[in-house]
Amino acid sequence: MTFAVNINRIIGEIDAATGGTAACTRPSYGAADAKTREYFLEVFGELGLDVHVDGAGNIRAAMKGKEPGLAPVLVGSHIDTVRNGGRFDGLLGVVCALECLRIFKEQGHVPRRNVEIIIFAEEEGSNFGVTLLGSKLLTGKLSQAALKELVNDAGESADAVIRDYDKLQPGDVYAMVELHIEQGPILADLKIPVGVVENIAGMETFRVTLTGTSGHAGTTAMANRKDPMVGAAEVILCMQKAAEKADGGTAVATVGKLTARPGATNVIAREVEFFVDIRDTDEASIDGLAMSLAFFAETAAEKHGLVAEVSRISKSAAIKLDSDVIKTIDQVATGLGINAKHMNSGAVHDAGMMADIAKVGMIFVPSIGGLSHCPEEDTRPSDIEIGANVLLETVKRLAEGV
Amino acid sequence: MTFAVNINRIIGEIDAATGGTAACTRPSYGAADAKTREYFLEVFGELGLDVHVDGAGNIRAAMKGKEPGLAPVLVGSHIDTVRNGGRFDGLLGVVCALECLRIFKEQGHVPRRNVEIIIFAEEEGSNFGVTLLGSKLLTGKLSQAALKELVNDAGESADAVIRDYDKLQPGDVYAMVELHIEQGPILADLKIPVGVVENIAGMETFRVTLTGTSGHAGTTAMANRKDPMVGAAEVILCMQKAAEKADGGTAVATVGKLTARPGATNVIAREVEFFVDIRDTDEASIDGLAMSLAFFAETAAEKHGLVAEVSRISKSAAIKLDSDVIKTIDQVATGLGINAKHMNSGAVHDAGMMADIAKVGMIFVPSIGGLSHCPEEDTRPSDIEIGANVLLETVKRLAEGV
Repeated sequence: MTFAVNINRIIGEIDAATGGTAACTRPSYGAADAKTREYFLEVFGELGLDVHVDGAGNIRAAMKGKEPGLAPVLVGSHIDTVRNGGRFDGLLGVVCALECLRIFKEQGHVPRRNVEIIIFAEEEGSNFGVTLLGSKLLTGKLSQAALKELVNDAGESADAVIRDYDKLQPGDVYAMVELHIEQGPILADLKIPVGVVENIAGMETFRVTLTGTSGHAGTTAMANRKDPMVGAAEVILCMQKAAEKADGGTAVATVGKLTARPGATNVIAREVEFFVDIRDTDEASIDGLAMSLAFFAETAAEKHGLVAEVSRISKSAAIKLDSDVIKTIDQVATGLGINAKHMNSGAVHDAGMMADIAKVGMIFVPSIGGLSHCPEEDTRPSDIEIGANVLLETVKRLAEGV
Repeated sequence: MTFAVNINRIIGEIDAATGGTAACTRPSYGAADAKTREYFLEVFGELGLDVHVDGAGNIRAAMKGKEPGLAPVLVGSHIDTVRNGGRFDGLLGVVCALECLRIFKEQGHVPRRNVEIIIFAEEEGSNFGVTLLGSKLLTGKLSQAALKELVNDAGESADAVIRDYDKLQPGDVYAMVELHIEQGPILADLKIPVGVVENIAGMETFRVTLTGTSGHAGTTAMANRKDPMVGAAEVILCMQKAAEKADGGTAVATVGKLTARPGATNVIAREVEFFVDIRDTDEASIDGLAMSLAFFAETAAEKHGLVAEVSRISKSAAIKLDSDVIKTIDQVATGLGINAKHMNSGAVHDAGMMADIAKVGMIFVPSIGGLSHCPEEDTRPSDIEIGANVLLETVKRLAEGV
């Protein structure tokens, strides 16, 4: 095995897809996302791939194998970003998948199974608030009816935007591999270029609404207030402490979005809505933190005369990836003389959604300083080159699989 | 003295100015505000008043007196509202001022001094974030240079919107009276129809920005976070406790507006900006709470590895109203056989800004349930009728004043 990928072409492709900026805001179904999608559709067409886009915006671009009747191998990730996110989250996995097929073509390599690049839509949930939306729809974990309840900040319903999406059944796909940045500090701290993912953390997202009584900030005595902002502050601090103290030390809880209504400096808020993102590789720990959240919200409501509503808007179970694919990645890394570390993913990934219908593996590359979801997100080109070579050989082997 | 005002005409005028809705969103310099302004300009024209609008949007509509060379008596309030505010805050004072001049005209009463209706622009600060903007500019408490630092949510600079506003000097105005809803529960609880304001609470508004490190909500361990949302929650709770415990029991502190950036459910915030509104009739108490705020922000920043920035964006001093005007209102109330209560105002008012250039008084009418800055804001028509009659007679007397 030799290093075959062209790192300059990979970096050039990242620059072309992002317009060369480190700060990316590309929510699915928006204008910036559409531009990047068009870019890839054009490149896939030039490469002679057979392109299909479903009603959710999931893109599949197939290279025909020797036995096209067999279930294909999928390789890819997502191209949407959080607001003011980085260049590599998602996009790197798509660009490296593209590099694999370019190499196949240049080498005249025809795989046994079809190999398809896949770009999942709305992974970040930046438009309709539900992460992994494209892969959840594709694997039957979310229904058209559920889309009616998702409304974005512009007031559009997901049900109006998303129609006639594909649904995969077990057996439709042989295997799937996703290369992704780690988004955490482990590989960079250890100076190890490749991570082999064993488990993906489960995640639940809750919407908390505390409703009190609006009023004039100057004329309503402190004792007479029913101020949901004060209740929200209590819940946020309690959740932070609960996550810190959870058994195992792997739990995290985050409040990254909060809206006070009406939202004026001189008006006591009538309603405060915020979102709590809870994750752990241990599902029981997530359940425990979810129960704590409900308790904290109810306690704050009783204390301040508020009405609390806590609803789960998103859930993805903790997932064990496929041992055969993990073994293949290990063998490839060994063959290339590369040090690879088995690890878990704190972030959820589309690959996790695919794990109940196909053999799924993930390859991580290091994130400098562990930073992600911000413009400072970065990975050394030499690490990208190593990861992409591991991906290339892994896909090649899986595509021969029986 | 007899009851002269026409309460049906007052209520009809409120309905005409609001379009009959109880939920008003009319920030200054916006479309809804412009519509209501045009309505009043038309009515003032029909009434034969001499109308002048300055570059800040302050409207003055003068009825000529017998000695027009004397400094005038001003009567009025504001017509802008907070977002989703009520019908009566501000507007009632303008409509009752209009009713006074209608009655003068119907009775053929020509006052000695000119009597002018005044409508102050941007009282609520709902557009550029600074309350009492129109009256502050008019009385020289804010300069054109200061307007450059005020930018609204649409990115417009106040300096671009506001140009060539009038400036009043001591002596330019003889007296000013503002009728306003109490916006608190005192008069309604005591079933007293009229309040005579002695002091207006001082108010300071602070912008607090806590800056940490953005990151992925799933891959950043709790121990490695610099999360400004957690810091903000601590500051909010500390300020609430500090205001509750402040000497005198009249202090209030409110956080009604908070923005997390980038503001996604699955991203640790990089920056949280929130506003703290502090008020008291005791200026030393405001100073103490402001110092506490700076301390709380610094403490939270040190604890969580954040950078804290606290800046005062607005200040209005506690104000004592004019004893002669207070005496006049008392005499009028007694003459009409009306029970009036001396009280303080927890809310700031344009009248307070006028107090250093003219003799100023304020008349409160009750707010049902003490509610204000919300659609439930309400005042009984019988109370409005009483308040408007007190206003009419007070203006009549002041306009004869030497």
